[in-house]
Amino acid sequence: MKQSELFTKTIKELPKDEESRNAQLLIKAGYIQKEMSGVYAFLPLGLKVLNKIIQIIREEMDSIGGQEISLSALQNPEIWQKTDRWSDKNVDAWFKTKLASGAEVGLGFTHEEPLTNIMRSYVQSYKDLPQYVYQFQTKFRNEARAKSGLMRTREFIMKDLYSFTVDQKALDEFYELAKEAYLKIFQRLGLGEKTFVTFASGGVFSKYSHEFQTECLAGEDTIYVDYEKKIAVNKEVYNDEVLAELGLDKEKLKTVKAIEVGNIFKLGTKFSEPLGLFYTDEAGNKKPVIMGCYGIGPARVLATIVELYNDEKGIVWPKSIAPFTAHLLCLGDDPEVKKQAESVYQSLIKEGIEVLFDDRIGLTAGEMFADADLVGLPYRLIVSKKNGDKIEIKERQSANSESLDLNQVIKKIKENV
Amino acid sequence: MKQSELFTKTIKELPKDEESRNAQLLIKAGYIQKEMSGVYAFLPLGLKVLNKIIQIIREEMDSIGGQEISLSALQNPEIWQKTDRWSDKNVDAWFKTKLASGAEVGLGFTHEEPLTNIMRSYVQSYKDLPQYVYQFQTKFRNEARAKSGLMRTREFIMKDLYSFTVDQKALDEFYELAKEAYLKIFQRLGLGEKTFVTFASGGVFSKYSHEFQTECLAGEDTIYVDYEKKIAVNKEVYNDEVLAELGLDKEKLKTVKAIEVGNIFKLGTKFSEPLGLFYTDEAGNKKPVIMGCYGIGPARVLATIVELYNDEKGIVWPKSIAPFTAHLLCLGDDPEVKKQAESVYQSLIKEGIEVLFDDRIGLTAGEMFADADLVGLPYRLIVSKKNGDKIEIKERQSANSESLDLNQVIKKIKENV
Repeated sequence: MKQSELFTKTIKELPKDEESRNAQLLIKAGYIQKEMSGVYAFLPLGLKVLNKIIQIIREEMDSIGGQEISLSALQNPEIWQKTDRWSDKNVDAWFKTKLASGAEVGLGFTHEEPLTNIMRSYVQSYKDLPQYVYQFQTKFRNEARAKSGLMRTREFIMKDLYSFTVDQKALDEFYELAKEAYLKIFQRLGLGEKTFVTFASGGVFSKYSHEFQTECLAGEDTIYVDYEKKIAVNKEVYNDEVLAELGLDKEKLKTVKAIEVGNIFKLGTKFSEPLGLFYTDEAGNKKPVIMGCYGIGPARVLATIVELYNDEKGIVWPKSIAPFTAHLLCLGDDPEVKKQAESVYQSLIKEGIEVLFDDRIGLTAGEMFADADLVGLPYRLIVSKKNGDKIEIKERQSANSESLDLNQVIKKIKENV
Repeated sequence: MKQSELFTKTIKELPKDEESRNAQLLIKAGYIQKEMSGVYAFLPLGLKVLNKIIQIIREEMDSIGGQEISLSALQNPEIWQKTDRWSDKNVDAWFKTKLASGAEVGLGFTHEEPLTNIMRSYVQSYKDLPQYVYQFQTKFRNEARAKSGLMRTREFIMKDLYSFTVDQKALDEFYELAKEAYLKIFQRLGLGEKTFVTFASGGVFSKYSHEFQTECLAGEDTIYVDYEKKIAVNKEVYNDEVLAELGLDKEKLKTVKAIEVGNIFKLGTKFSEPLGLFYTDEAGNKKPVIMGCYGIGPARVLATIVELYNDEKGIVWPKSIAPFTAHLLCLGDDPEVKKQAESVYQSLIKEGIEVLFDDRIGLTAGEMFADADLVGLPYRLIVSKKNGDKIEIKERQSANSESLDLNQVIKKIKENV
């Protein structure tokens, strides 16, 4: 894409009311805009990153048998009353609104109830199970205080997968599969090294749930990490008994701040029983379906990546989710140089390399460099009179650049993506 | 995809409270589910169709310079007050809700206000224009009476593009470009023959707006069509004066029911002035940005296609948006036949053909045929003992089938997609 055609620009001043590093950088670089407290718009570059994160998650959910759907935001109180989650006394995150008729409806903050209800149309027999169903859908949560930029917002896309199985064993097996898929997702997103399977509070049907916590100073959670075993314990369940049960040595644990980037939870029959999702087993007995749920918030993942990967100049995107792989800068107004840059741009596109071409006129080299650092694409390529036929290539985090032929540039980028 | 792994099944009974043909067929075939009146969930097959429609629209919007973004559903009253559209007296479609603080917010029924407000950060000079910005975003409309299935719902995805230009001439030029792109979209969606550019009421800044009306008995609108000129006039502006102005002959017009599948509208300075979206022209004068808006509802398009393309047995999808191109049926339980069907399935996938493989066991041939007709994929392929090495191929609407080799089947499908 040509930068002259991108409607966003980098913004010089920091937004006043925005204290979090992720939102500051993302707004300054033109990835997002704040619509109101806890509510953000995704602009072209931001939407590209978000969609890349979503696609990685989608691929891994498909690989464990997930089937994608899309439920509604508007929620029918009837089904939530069955699980006792309609009342504001039990759930304080509801946004509620009214139909023209005066009837109250809610905006989904999660989707166990509607999906469990829908599955009743398709699950009658053990032959109809297991099923793994997921969506990327907007959740609304009436946070008393939205904070931390994209980390905790009032409206956000969530990937929520729900598993429907015949028994605890089948749930346990899928749960482990989902855990592995999650680790693979965070690996692909560039968060693998810093993300830990974390024991957190469970429910009636399981002693623990598991969170995926990414070590980060900006995190709201406190976890105790065993780096050797690559697991952690959330503060909420941290005590001697739990440590003993998990075989963890208190002395080896490090207390760190972390961001919950995902969580998985064994629901058992918590939703299937009250909502009437039963199946008939091989012997003809009617049994409640056993459920699990598996969540990741793509925008929170995006915020976490920005919190972890930035420097004083701007964002430093991992290659897997950068909006473009290369930032091509054309320095100066020399017509020959412009022609050369345009030709390099077309060659890179032809090679399937995603490139943002800074073809804007009237900017100094310094302004272009500052913008490129702020936007944070993995490779900066410079075409200029000084460089002649060569292209100056520099990785975002590197202090050193080198001058290469176009073919060498293409080879280098392709080898490292 | 293997049908045995698809969680949805065809449903025998018609939903009682569902009067529209599109929702009846889509629910029976497992494409969608009704969550409440005017609110539907998209299930795996339905989401696939919806996404194909979205992708076609996206490609055409990109081809005329559109930049994709995603705004929020939650709306800040402040900016809507500036255009006098916050009050329920002026806009009766609002869903409103409250933040935990007690402050009222709305759910966007359209997005002129928030986008115009955001553009202020990026548009200062004539050099920053034109810009064409679009999104696929969920709109909420508090319809007094939701009806006609997916045609008029309370929550739906909308593609809304907004153009920002320096003057009327630039708007007019882009408007014509958008009109052509829209016609191309409806052509690709299989609605080209029945969709007419329709003159409808305009506003302060233009005498007419243009709707894209698809002739259909289930439509809510009445239009007067000139089939030769391929244009129409909406009942709301139909009078002798308008006909004379448009050079239309009353005698040649046919009165038909139609569905509004898209509309484009010249907004002028209606939003830019009150919201303060101004630019400085070459002479240094401050001027309001001239805007236009361009909408298509992908789910309404989907409903329209189902209303137009169905028979007593089920849906008849156009090839461009069918969830799968071929429905492969394996008849009988013979292990050799099963092996053959599996091999055909793998070969089709390898050839890049999207195929739904009905590998379910225990169904009669009649049940499989009925399901295939209801689901409505373009090609039905049968592998059975009777057919031997050959594959029986039948187009959904054809009464005749033929027996072909696998290679011939692949060739036939690829030639016609």
